[in-house]
Amino acid sequence: MTGDVPLGPGAEFDAIRRLADRWGPRASGLGDDAAILRVPRGDTLVASIDTAVEGRHFERAWLSPREIGYRSVVAALSDLAAMAARPIGVLVALTLPDAWRDELLDLGDGIGDAVDAGRTHVIGGNMSGGGELSITTTVLGAAFAPLTRSGARPNDRVYVTGELGGPAEAVRRLSLGQSAGPFRHRFAHPVPRLDEARWLAERGASAGIDVSDGLLADLRHVSAASGVAIDVDDRSVPRMSGVDLSVAMRGGDEYEMVVTSPRDIDRAGFERRFGVRLSEIGRVVDASRAEVTVRGARVADDAGYDHFSR
Amino acid sequence: MTGDVPLGPGAEFDAIRRLADRWGPRASGLGDDAAILRVPRGDTLVASIDTAVEGRHFERAWLSPREIGYRSVVAALSDLAAMAARPIGVLVALTLPDAWRDELLDLGDGIGDAVDAGRTHVIGGNMSGGGELSITTTVLGAAFAPLTRSGARPNDRVYVTGELGGPAEAVRRLSLGQSAGPFRHRFAHPVPRLDEARWLAERGASAGIDVSDGLLADLRHVSAASGVAIDVDDRSVPRMSGVDLSVAMRGGDEYEMVVTSPRDIDRAGFERRFGVRLSEIGRVVDASRAEVTVRGARVADDAGYDHFSR
Repeated sequence: MTGDVPLGPGAEFDAIRRLADRWGPRASGLGDDAAILRVPRGDTLVASIDTAVEGRHFERAWLSPREIGYRSVVAALSDLAAMAARPIGVLVALTLPDAWRDELLDLGDGIGDAVDAGRTHVIGGNMSGGGELSITTTVLGAAFAPLTRSGARPNDRVYVTGELGGPAEAVRRLSLGQSAGPFRHRFAHPVPRLDEARWLAERGASAGIDVSDGLLADLRHVSAASGVAIDVDDRSVPRMSGVDLSVAMRGGDEYEMVVTSPRDIDRAGFERRFGVRLSEIGRVVDASRAEVTVRGARVADDAGYDHFSR
Repeated sequence: MTGDVPLGPGAEFDAIRRLADRWGPRASGLGDDAAILRVPRGDTLVASIDTAVEGRHFERAWLSPREIGYRSVVAALSDLAAMAARPIGVLVALTLPDAWRDELLDLGDGIGDAVDAGRTHVIGGNMSGGGELSITTTVLGAAFAPLTRSGARPNDRVYVTGELGGPAEAVRRLSLGQSAGPFRHRFAHPVPRLDEARWLAERGASAGIDVSDGLLADLRHVSAASGVAIDVDDRSVPRMSGVDLSVAMRGGDEYEMVVTSPRDIDRAGFERRFGVRLSEIGRVVDASRAEVTVRGARVADDAGYDHFSR
C-alpha cells in the first residue's frame, strides 16, 4: 500500500499507518476489516499460523529488532514451504509492549524483509499493547497438490536440505554468554525453502516437513502422520563444521526441508539450481509401526526442541 | 478431527492433542504444517487476524475461561461479518502461561462455542508458552462480493444492528468493582452478525463495518475509507436501557454491524428474520470531506475505544 491507510484517528491506527508507510508496496489492501484475495483457479488454499514470543522463542539481547521481525515471519513462511505452496499473503498480529514502541519500524523492516524473501505481501494485521513482545503470523498460500506429512511409504528415501545445527549451536553459545560466531547468521537469517520445496515436490516427493522442532522430532511427525517407521543414518546427516552431531539431530528453528521420495532425487541438479546441499539421510523401513530409529536403535522420545516445555 | 492428531511426542503436541480431542468434529485437518482448504469457485477469499491479550482486552476476574475463548474468536469472526463473508475456517494461536494450563480445555470449549456460532471449524493453530494469556485468531471466509468500508456514497442511509452500550457499561461497572448486572451477557456473549450482514449486503448495503472500536470510531473508519462525511442523529442510536448515550456512542466490543445503503432497508423484515433491531441512525452527507458529525456538530477525535492506548 503506498500512501495512506484509510483509518480514523487513534494511537493504534497511527501505528498501523506508520508501518504501512514503511512497507510501501510490500503491503497491500490494509485498512479494511479483512483482506480480500484470490486463490488461483484450480489451486487449493494452504494456511498456517505461528507465534514468536519474547523470552520464549528469542531473547531481545541476541537479535536486532529487524532480525526478530524477519525470523518470526520466516518461521511461518517455512510452513508453506513444508506444503510446497506458493505464498499469496501474510497477516501479522503484533503485540507491542511500551518498551518496544521505538522499535516498531525496525520490526516492520524485518517483516518486510521476510515478505520479500517469500515474494509476497503483508495483506492484513493487528496491533495491540501487551506485557511481552509477541508476533503471530498467518501465512496464506496456494498449491495445486500440497505436500503433506502423511505420504511417506516403505522404501522411500529421506532427504534434507542444507547443513544442520547452526541455529541450535548459536543459541547454545549465546546462552553461555559467548559469541555465536559463524553460527549467528543461520540463527538470525534463516531462509524459507519455498522454491526448493516446490522443486522437490515436482520431482515426486511423497511427504514433506520443515525442520522447526528438530530433525528427529520432525521425522517423528512424518512417521506419526504416515504411519511408517523411519531409519536415519546419522553419519549422513549434514551439519555445519564445528557442530556436534546431537545438536544437528535435535536442534530446531532450522527451516530446512525434509522430504521423502520413492525415487532417487537428482541431488547434483538440486545443488546446481539452488546452491544448497541436498543429503540422503535415511529410509522409510516399515509400515507396521510409527517410530524413528537411528541405524536401527531407538532414541529417547523427548529429544526435540519443544517450545511449550521450555 | 475425531481421535488422534498424528504428531510426535512432546508437551506442546500433547496439549494440541488434548484440545483436538475436546473439539472433536469442530476441528478438522489438524496435525500438518498447514491447513488445506478450498475456496468455493467464483468466490473471493477474505482473511483477518485479531488478538486478545489478558489485562488489555479482558481481565481474568471478569470472565470465565470459556467466555474468554469464545469472545476472542467471535471478535475475529465479526470481521468476516463486516465483509459479508461466510466463514470457511479458523486458525487459533494460543499463548498459554503456566498459570493458565489448567484452563486449557475450558478455553478450548469457548473456542469451540465460537466456531459453532460461526458454523465453521478450527483448521489450524499454534501453542506456545508465555508470560500472559494471548489468543490470536485468524478467520478465513469466502464471499462473492465482499462488503468493504469504502463504498459509502452521499445520501446513503446509515444503519446499525442491535442495541449498543452493553459491553462498555459492563466494563465500566466491573472496573468499579460492581456487578455488571444485565449488561454482563452482552459483554461475555457477543454474537457475530454473520447472517445479518449477508442479508444486508444482499439487499444493497454499500459499505459495512462491525462495531469493535466504538460506533463513532468505526463510522470514522468508514468515513476515511469512503472519503465521505457522515452525520449521526444521536437520538436514533439504539441503546440498552440504563446505558448513557455517550457510552453507547463510544463503547467498543459490540460486534454489531453498521452498514450504509442507498436504498431504504426493510427494517421490519430484518427484525422478523433475526429477532434483532435494525435502526437508521444517520446519513452520508458529503463527499468533499471525510468526517463524522453528530447532528451537524464535530465531536472529539479521540472518542473511540483504542486497544493500543489503554
